[in-house]
Amino acid sequence: MIEQYIQKKQNQINDQFEKEFSNLDLPSHLHEALVYSIQAGGKRLRPILMMASFEAFSKDLNKVIHPALALEMIHTYSLIHDDLPAMDDDDFRRGQETIHKKFDEATAILVGDGLLTYSFQFVVNSNALEAEEKIYTIQQLSQSSGFKGMISGQFLDLQAENKEMNEQELHHIHLLKTGELIRASIKIGAYLGGAAPPQIEALDEFGKYLGLVFQIQDDILDVSGEMELIGKPVGSDEENNKSTYPELLGLDQAISIKEEYMEYAKEKYDEANIDEPILLGLLNIFGNRNA
Amino acid sequence: MIEQYIQKKQNQINDQFEKEFSNLDLPSHLHEALVYSIQAGGKRLRPILMMASFEAFSKDLNKVIHPALALEMIHTYSLIHDDLPAMDDDDFRRGQETIHKKFDEATAILVGDGLLTYSFQFVVNSNALEAEEKIYTIQQLSQSSGFKGMISGQFLDLQAENKEMNEQELHHIHLLKTGELIRASIKIGAYLGGAAPPQIEALDEFGKYLGLVFQIQDDILDVSGEMELIGKPVGSDEENNKSTYPELLGLDQAISIKEEYMEYAKEKYDEANIDEPILLGLLNIFGNRNA
Repeated sequence: MIEQYIQKKQNQINDQFEKEFSNLDLPSHLHEALVYSIQAGGKRLRPILMMASFEAFSKDLNKVIHPALALEMIHTYSLIHDDLPAMDDDDFRRGQETIHKKFDEATAILVGDGLLTYSFQFVVNSNALEAEEKIYTIQQLSQSSGFKGMISGQFLDLQAENKEMNEQELHHIHLLKTGELIRASIKIGAYLGGAAPPQIEALDEFGKYLGLVFQIQDDILDVSGEMELIGKPVGSDEENNKSTYPELLGLDQAISIKEEYMEYAKEKYDEANIDEPILLGLLNIFGNRNA
Repeated sequence: MIEQYIQKKQNQINDQFEKEFSNLDLPSHLHEALVYSIQAGGKRLRPILMMASFEAFSKDLNKVIHPALALEMIHTYSLIHDDLPAMDDDDFRRGQETIHKKFDEATAILVGDGLLTYSFQFVVNSNALEAEEKIYTIQQLSQSSGFKGMISGQFLDLQAENKEMNEQELHHIHLLKTGELIRASIKIGAYLGGAAPPQIEALDEFGKYLGLVFQIQDDILDVSGEMELIGKPVGSDEENNKSTYPELLGLDQAISIKEEYMEYAKEKYDEANIDEPILLGLLNIFGNRNA
């Protein structure tokens, strides 16, 4: 059931992207790179999370689709820039060549810049949102992906290469680099759906633990996964000398921390006082995925 | 008088930037690079233009200062990314080392990304703007700096290296690469000041010609200026084999086109039916500056 839900939402998101981007009148190579970047097989977990959080409170998905796509654009831009030679220097992503490899570095920088800018343009021009909804969405998106969120996370992550980190530092980077944007997806979904402030707060905490679960599982997959499943060379973090939970604490301990966080997330879900099994299903998927 | 106006506004903008950025709690190297980038001696022409356009209709500058700073952040981000080795590969800007040279490429990419994101965050969190004013400002900023504006301009500009361009193509790149953001400054200023739609329209056209004047003068300076005045090696466009008006049409013809556009701009100013000599003063400064 959860797999069907994900599949259905993925199709919906991909169709909407197709609709939004296929007719954009841009210089042809730029357009080609943009379409390639956005269709490069992402799992769409963040927008799906936003939609599931929204559906805990309301069923008119029309309101959440633009913010969900905007969030995925921000996620996509961050991957494009993180993969650049000056950053993590990855040639493959999801089993496909990264933009700077398939096209060139300048195009990758510009497509990333353009996606980030377009995400805000997309929300602000949405005809399904009230003024205050646009404002809340842009506040959450810009804060979570900004200097004090994702940008600091990526900066600290780069600085930490070839350096010993302790568990606390690693935790901090995880919260910033992937956690903030995941929290924003959940909060925006809940707010747009009409959640009460204490519910948004509880779901924000749910999102925090879910983000940690996601990242630890990413690290676990990096040491134990198979190339064809995760679409990038296994052990690429180790190659970059990045600290990970399995490396710091051993694989068993990493798994046990992940499970602890999954428990915390469930408690926060209960606090939110909602009945949306999809959210719990997504938590399980995040924590147990093999790709 | 116009010089005093510019000086006063520059101080105001720099003070405000100092206030906004000095206490931002960020990883220290990231913070240092951010502060360096924003204090690197810009002339602040775009925010000043926004403020002057605003002052043609209203005197309470409180309303325009956040959008003006946001616009300068976008301009600054675009310079940081344009200077990267994969783009224009410039080691100096305004007589100082560019960010990737002074720090490193990864930091330059992240500071640029962060400034772009922060510009929207800054507007959306401004306590001086009504909801509709935030929305208009973000619409204009994201559109002018987005895929169909500045991004396409920079993309086409890079593609045009080592290629013969005709006057029409060059004109098109100018309109996108620098023109759109300059038009946005003028439009946002006028809107926030309370201009009527036909006035905004006339000033938008004023901004279009002013942007062209600015860019042609930039090209003229690039062939005829002195390094210490413009802060980058003279003839650096030629080194990159970029087409310019002086190169395409000769210096005299380029000057005469610039003067023609200055006339058009004055006509549009008259159409706007306002009395703001500062705007005309800025046009003259843009067209006759030697740096």
